[in-house]
Amino acid sequence: MAPALTTPLAVSLGDPAGIGPEVIAKCWDNREAFDLPVFVAIGDPRSVAAVWDGPIELIEDPRQADAAFDYGLPLIQINAPQPDVPGHPSVVGAHTSLDSLEIAVGLARSGSAAAVVTGPVAKEQLYAIGFQHPGQTEFVAERCGVSPGNVVMMLAGPTLRTVPVTTHLPLNAVSSQLNSALIEARGRATLRGLQRNFGIAEPRLAVSGLNPHSGEGGQLGSEEIDLIEPAIAALVAEGWRVTGPHPADTMFHGSARAHYDAALCMYHDQALIPIKALHFEEAVNVTLGLPIVRTAPDHGTAFDIAGQDRADPRPMAAAIRMAAENASLRADTA
Amino acid sequence: MAPALTTPLAVSLGDPAGIGPEVIAKCWDNREAFDLPVFVAIGDPRSVAAVWDGPIELIEDPRQADAAFDYGLPLIQINAPQPDVPGHPSVVGAHTSLDSLEIAVGLARSGSAAAVVTGPVAKEQLYAIGFQHPGQTEFVAERCGVSPGNVVMMLAGPTLRTVPVTTHLPLNAVSSQLNSALIEARGRATLRGLQRNFGIAEPRLAVSGLNPHSGEGGQLGSEEIDLIEPAIAALVAEGWRVTGPHPADTMFHGSARAHYDAALCMYHDQALIPIKALHFEEAVNVTLGLPIVRTAPDHGTAFDIAGQDRADPRPMAAAIRMAAENASLRADTA
Repeated sequence: MAPALTTPLAVSLGDPAGIGPEVIAKCWDNREAFDLPVFVAIGDPRSVAAVWDGPIELIEDPRQADAAFDYGLPLIQINAPQPDVPGHPSVVGAHTSLDSLEIAVGLARSGSAAAVVTGPVAKEQLYAIGFQHPGQTEFVAERCGVSPGNVVMMLAGPTLRTVPVTTHLPLNAVSSQLNSALIEARGRATLRGLQRNFGIAEPRLAVSGLNPHSGEGGQLGSEEIDLIEPAIAALVAEGWRVTGPHPADTMFHGSARAHYDAALCMYHDQALIPIKALHFEEAVNVTLGLPIVRTAPDHGTAFDIAGQDRADPRPMAAAIRMAAENASLRADTA
Repeated sequence: MAPALTTPLAVSLGDPAGIGPEVIAKCWDNREAFDLPVFVAIGDPRSVAAVWDGPIELIEDPRQADAAFDYGLPLIQINAPQPDVPGHPSVVGAHTSLDSLEIAVGLARSGSAAAVVTGPVAKEQLYAIGFQHPGQTEFVAERCGVSPGNVVMMLAGPTLRTVPVTTHLPLNAVSSQLNSALIEARGRATLRGLQRNFGIAEPRLAVSGLNPHSGEGGQLGSEEIDLIEPAIAALVAEGWRVTGPHPADTMFHGSARAHYDAALCMYHDQALIPIKALHFEEAVNVTLGLPIVRTAPDHGTAFDIAGQDRADPRPMAAAIRMAAENASLRADTA
């Protein structure tokens, strides 16, 4: 059952021309089947109405969401100068998506919302209006007064959580960008996040190797010995339960997963291949290291299918559910 | 049901001090539950007796296996000068494992065995006795008169088959070792193997990208544009059904897997992470490009647990079953 929260979740619609409005509306439609708590959407109601026939309850204060939720999708309105057409992103829509994100974060920061769930945005359009961050995560970090270097992206599914140490780098740049301090910092932020967001008092972190067979003792690469082992030793010395480096190919099967609460991976696909192979419809992007809870579905705007009633709402539902669980666990331990 | 074959499968015990003898004996024990066809083990019977109390039927000719199989594990004996102790590999054991492999391959080459299944060997000990090959695969290729460059290793499970283009390389050497000709050759060998070993008349091959998001049109690396796309185009021009490059993180979930018969991956962990995450106990190593069928369980000698009755026979059973299926499909299309 969805945990009881005293405030609603704030859900930004994301880019109005993407699938965000559709999947969020479908989440409200299926709120009982998906076991979702009360949430309020933030964005342009026309972007929802363009793709969904259900009732929208315009509200001005999150405190109205609880009463409205039984009757329609509660929505805090952003007045865009003109509506976007699904599948056709614009700079106007980029402004709307940014305003929606800003308001959602503000509501969570002030305590009016229990957590933030973010719909997918279009980076290209955001860059065109002067957005300076690599993605929403860094924007949220800045609005929370946290250095982007201190937040980590976790992909969390029902039986696996992974965190990539490096993210959007060409594969052949990964080795040169890795260093012990970075691995250690990401590991520490992950461990603290497991405590704070997931209520695990003594979290267990499994750290992957970079190379096949974790380098085979230096035969297939030396990053394990030079970079990864020292980072693990430093975390262990602080009292954390950290193991590895583990060969990446044998750390994600069922009985291996039972031995840790999160896997710290060295690069993007090492973290994302297993989570998406195992939990494609349920993998949630959780930002750790923030004063607020923020989750997101792990998919993009999907402009190519926007407005066609084809978007799968399950990833968004998983993100909403996990935001509620994380927020509830934080409230318990606060 | 196990396919009907006119000759038994030849199963080499692998290193006598490893878990090969135990898992092969357990396969005979569970031959009905595992739905296994008649097979004959090849190796030192003392290595089986050291870890298993069941009946061993010593035979001298594979034609005797069918009659013997109901009464005990049929075994063609190799006379080692002394037996190995489980968990304690030796150069004597390495010789025995090599002899066992040699005989198994010879039986398949001559038509006396339907296929070869190889137990795990210890490369370190093999190197100590002058073994010159990177692994059993290359040894088998040479004994079959095939250049090692023309065989490919496939990992095959119930819902996914993957083939790595490069294998045991440090991650930061992958990019420099990739080239279009290699990708194309591996792709072609995989497609032919899907026809020959798996009976798929018009096989579909999905090719992965190397970089996150498959390079995002060159933003995150250029190997997709420079190396992978030309290889795909060349295969398509030959009439093969080949797609890609696909972002590696979104190509291994259930509905994505339904669109191809095998995934061609750029490096070791890209191929092995998804197959082992999804099919750890059932993933089989299949060598494609040989005149014979050869499979192996995708695990090593596991000396640390040898002789303790702890080894899981399911991967070996999957390898035996797949060898029988592949051999049967080859016989049908011969």
